[in-house]
Amino acid sequence: MIDAGQVQGVGVAVSTVIFALRQHPDTGAVGLWLPLVRRIREPWQGRWALPGGMVRVTEGLELAARRNLLETTALEPTYLEQLYAFGEADRSPDGRIVSIVYWALVRADEASRAAVDENVQWFPADDLPELAFDHNLIVDYALWRLRTKVEYGRIAHAFLGETFTLSELREVHETVLRRPLDPANFRRQIESSGAIVSTEEVVTGGRHRPPRLYRFNTAVDLVDNGPLTPVRL
Amino acid sequence: MIDAGQVQGVGVAVSTVIFALRQHPDTGAVGLWLPLVRRIREPWQGRWALPGGMVRVTEGLELAARRNLLETTALEPTYLEQLYAFGEADRSPDGRIVSIVYWALVRADEASRAAVDENVQWFPADDLPELAFDHNLIVDYALWRLRTKVEYGRIAHAFLGETFTLSELREVHETVLRRPLDPANFRRQIESSGAIVSTEEVVTGGRHRPPRLYRFNTAVDLVDNGPLTPVRL
Repeated sequence: MIDAGQVQGVGVAVSTVIFALRQHPDTGAVGLWLPLVRRIREPWQGRWALPGGMVRVTEGLELAARRNLLETTALEPTYLEQLYAFGEADRSPDGRIVSIVYWALVRADEASRAAVDENVQWFPADDLPELAFDHNLIVDYALWRLRTKVEYGRIAHAFLGETFTLSELREVHETVLRRPLDPANFRRQIESSGAIVSTEEVVTGGRHRPPRLYRFNTAVDLVDNGPLTPVRL
Repeated sequence: MIDAGQVQGVGVAVSTVIFALRQHPDTGAVGLWLPLVRRIREPWQGRWALPGGMVRVTEGLELAARRNLLETTALEPTYLEQLYAFGEADRSPDGRIVSIVYWALVRADEASRAAVDENVQWFPADDLPELAFDHNLIVDYALWRLRTKVEYGRIAHAFLGETFTLSELREVHETVLRRPLDPANFRRQIESSGAIVSTEEVVTGGRHRPPRLYRFNTAVDLVDNGPLTPVRL
């Protein structure tokens, strides 16, 4: 076993995948988008990459992710979770780097605060160019986790506001999953999950049967890290 | 941003939490146990720690976890999954170390192959001494994940053999969750989950109504990493 004090030659970086629902400017279709940063140095100079950078000796991993995100995109997502550590030996041509990847789902109003310029742009998550490093694989993995593992309530809270109708919630799920969902089945599943609770409010506007508003069930933790304490801002 | 080539001063280690069901030698009660390794150098010389060590420049994270596990405990678990990266700045007194933690659930016959000596011992997971580093927190997190996140089918396959009765499966879940489960509810939930399938076999031995044997549904992936390719041995 190598001692901690020895030079090991393995660097540690953080990267973040941030998903938001946005309208395609050409087609008008709503889909999943994420912000990317153009690399201004080798390796892969000129290619797009996930926002991120190296971890400083004095900062924890999540703080490093937040700092890099703020510096590159001006984004400060409320909920940021660790996704996976990517550490194949050959994933960077310029020395060994292990990347701890975080991810966040943000509402449209949060996403709109991102600083966008020629080196920071939003891309449709399912139609990306060839990215630097193994970042295409990382996005694929994040999309898979989002589409197979994230519970109803958390998607509701992440992409919608405080309150929402069942139709709005179903539309978000249809966008994420890229397929239509049966309204009756969806209602049954979401109600039995306990992830959302009915409010006493309805949508105003004088319709004959105004739809009821729901909210996320706050008894369920948003960052579900169990015994680990999430970083509070 | 620090360049990859610069000395960063952050080391990368791997550790592994291996859970097996074992009988307590004094009480006979079956519970979750895990193997620990006594540290033979500072920091925390003499304390027990999770098996692990530093990652070599030329090896991927999972391979590093497997190598360290083999070297310290002689264990080669079939299924090894990444659990979480622990990287608080102050978690090691002897330089900054980020630990990528893996975990595995192993059957009793696999567990019995572990090399046990004065520096490698099995401990009951819910009654550990004070460990080196933040390893108590890591075990707590792994226990929480096991008790709240792992699906029926995967626990079945990990802790039981190829085939098992519903009673055996329920007993495993009762051990993991540390509470009795209603047999009828358990049967209903497990059957609706699709995680196990009924075989045509029953337990032999001449009982009036011999219980049916089930097996894990192999259509469900054991290492559920989505687009990531698990390491094949």
